[in-house]
Amino acid sequence: MKLSVLQENLAKGLATVGRSVASRAQLPVLSNILLATDKGRLKLSATNLETGINHWLGAKIEKEGTLSVPAKILTEFVSSLPPEKVNLEAKDNNLLVDCGQYQAEFNGLDATEFPKIPSLKSKAEISFATTSLVKAINQVAFAAAQDEGRPVLTGVLLLVRGKELILVATDGYRLSLKKLPTTKGVAESKELKKGLIMPSRTLTELARTVGGTETEKEIGLAITQEANQAIFSSPETEIISRLIEGKYPDFEKIIPEKGKTKIIVDVAELTRAVKVAAIFAREAANIVRFQIDQKGLEITANTAQVGRNIARIEAKVSGEKSKIAFNSRYLLDLLATVDSEEINLELAGALNPGVFTLKNEPSFLHIIMPVRVQE
Amino acid sequence: MKLSVLQENLAKGLATVGRSVASRAQLPVLSNILLATDKGRLKLSATNLETGINHWLGAKIEKEGTLSVPAKILTEFVSSLPPEKVNLEAKDNNLLVDCGQYQAEFNGLDATEFPKIPSLKSKAEISFATTSLVKAINQVAFAAAQDEGRPVLTGVLLLVRGKELILVATDGYRLSLKKLPTTKGVAESKELKKGLIMPSRTLTELARTVGGTETEKEIGLAITQEANQAIFSSPETEIISRLIEGKYPDFEKIIPEKGKTKIIVDVAELTRAVKVAAIFAREAANIVRFQIDQKGLEITANTAQVGRNIARIEAKVSGEKSKIAFNSRYLLDLLATVDSEEINLELAGALNPGVFTLKNEPSFLHIIMPVRVQE
Repeated sequence: MKLSVLQENLAKGLATVGRSVASRAQLPVLSNILLATDKGRLKLSATNLETGINHWLGAKIEKEGTLSVPAKILTEFVSSLPPEKVNLEAKDNNLLVDCGQYQAEFNGLDATEFPKIPSLKSKAEISFATTSLVKAINQVAFAAAQDEGRPVLTGVLLLVRGKELILVATDGYRLSLKKLPTTKGVAESKELKKGLIMPSRTLTELARTVGGTETEKEIGLAITQEANQAIFSSPETEIISRLIEGKYPDFEKIIPEKGKTKIIVDVAELTRAVKVAAIFAREAANIVRFQIDQKGLEITANTAQVGRNIARIEAKVSGEKSKIAFNSRYLLDLLATVDSEEINLELAGALNPGVFTLKNEPSFLHIIMPVRVQE
Repeated sequence: MKLSVLQENLAKGLATVGRSVASRAQLPVLSNILLATDKGRLKLSATNLETGINHWLGAKIEKEGTLSVPAKILTEFVSSLPPEKVNLEAKDNNLLVDCGQYQAEFNGLDATEFPKIPSLKSKAEISFATTSLVKAINQVAFAAAQDEGRPVLTGVLLLVRGKELILVATDGYRLSLKKLPTTKGVAESKELKKGLIMPSRTLTELARTVGGTETEKEIGLAITQEANQAIFSSPETEIISRLIEGKYPDFEKIIPEKGKTKIIVDVAELTRAVKVAAIFAREAANIVRFQIDQKGLEITANTAQVGRNIARIEAKVSGEKSKIAFNSRYLLDLLATVDSEEINLELAGALNPGVFTLKNEPSFLHIIMPVRVQE
């Protein structure tokens, strides 16, 4: 292998595939990145056996070849180099890197030792606008469970209905749902119609990877031939994820009927008030209390040892007076994803979930279970 | 106590004194901040028994009084409030805070339980320009020892010679020295003439506290009557530090004679080359090697398992060819403090310390001991 690339492109590519390098690798080769010449481009690949990433970048190739080298040190080295041309050359199993005043040699491993990462053979089944997909992931993935108690809940359900992809995540205490239009294609595979469960981590990595790039305007989704992995693909990057097996809860049953109290609140004011209450709630199980009457919303928290607080915020209220308590962390997680000015909250008493919606975005819905508290 | 202050001033003041609140307090009261009305201003105080801070801010006082409350939660609460007027009122041992839509009550403690922090009774003995003092601290304090093996080395020596304050720190592997002109005053106390040893942490906190403020243009230094503490003071802030007892090493004996090799190097280029070498040196005791000949400076590092690198940088060289090895961490610590374009390095062989100086700043000197390596 012998080729040259621009430092900026190589640094960006290494950072992209570096996201799926295992932090504590079971096999030494999993802390490596695979470099390979591929039809006039340099292909970088990494995998942690849950998520794999392939990324291609423009290169001037003198001699074809492939080799894997330690990801972390190569990435740090390349990102420290000046923005000039970088020459890469394989010598036995080592990689020689040459850039102006800087030369380095990295101990590598033969490419045959690197695990095979699937690559998209034909076209993706359906596609999305990248910015919409990234936004949808950010609105949903955080609601997935962190602990592995029920593996299906650590994933996000992806389900195609006609020309929409529905994303759902729930950890049992909250649920987030977003409907996303497809830009082209029709889902033929039964997996996409039935719904597949993808690890929320993979989707979060996908959002980070493609979120910042102007170049990748559209992103496709396909299932591998063995039907046990899904591939998100764009011209420069492919993200391959294992799927979680199991039956996802019937989310449509969880969504409650109309509430008895409805309020519309300014998102910035609500966020500030919940943040302030969260300071006091930290040592009291994060419990913040909402009290709603015709005048608006009162948010309170208290910890016996420390003190207590009250914030009053204006709200457009319709329906009954109401009281309810929430975990402040769930409220703040939700509010951090909202880019509307106002948010709607519907309540059906202190023991039923609160339903959050956005006026200008009917495709989004979020539910938070209340905390039972003594009066 | 009943008074009102502006949220911005109170938030800034709490952040300032919060620096000396004990993170894991031996006594509960040490995690508190003391509030007291003081001659038309609000005085905030905190101490961790090593460093104490007093800070004054403008206030409209209705009723005199004093009270201590938990630092962390009060600081977080106030910094989350909108930039408006904040009313503070003591009610029994509690503090009521009222700001627009927000009210809170903090459980406090009687002020008599708070440890006494000395305050400057008369004028400071000598003064410095704040920006020069902050720069001097940043150039010296990092070279003090982190471990408590020899307590005097965890401190910075402050020594008055005529109209200069000399600051010295060394951990036995490196030494940093800076001479700072006094702006007014003459040191009368024998402690300042003999030299006092102040914890490097206190000085670093001082630099952070006064470093960002435009208002505190000059800062004074005095010794308490009991001569066991030193006070840095400005109109808004006082920082009180315990002193370290013991005899400081005779630093003048450590400074070597003229070297045999002298080089002048661009600071940005040297920093980049050392950073790159440090990546490879990380798992090899941070050892980077310098090789100097008429063409310039070559910096190399290698780790058997990972790989090796070479960087060549231009340098103005005079005297003999030379080889030496340094700990990359010490080089990077030094280079991070340099704001000149070029740095001078004088060497007297591979076993003698390297002496770093700055052409336009003869008041600064830094010495790094070499690492002995096999050829």
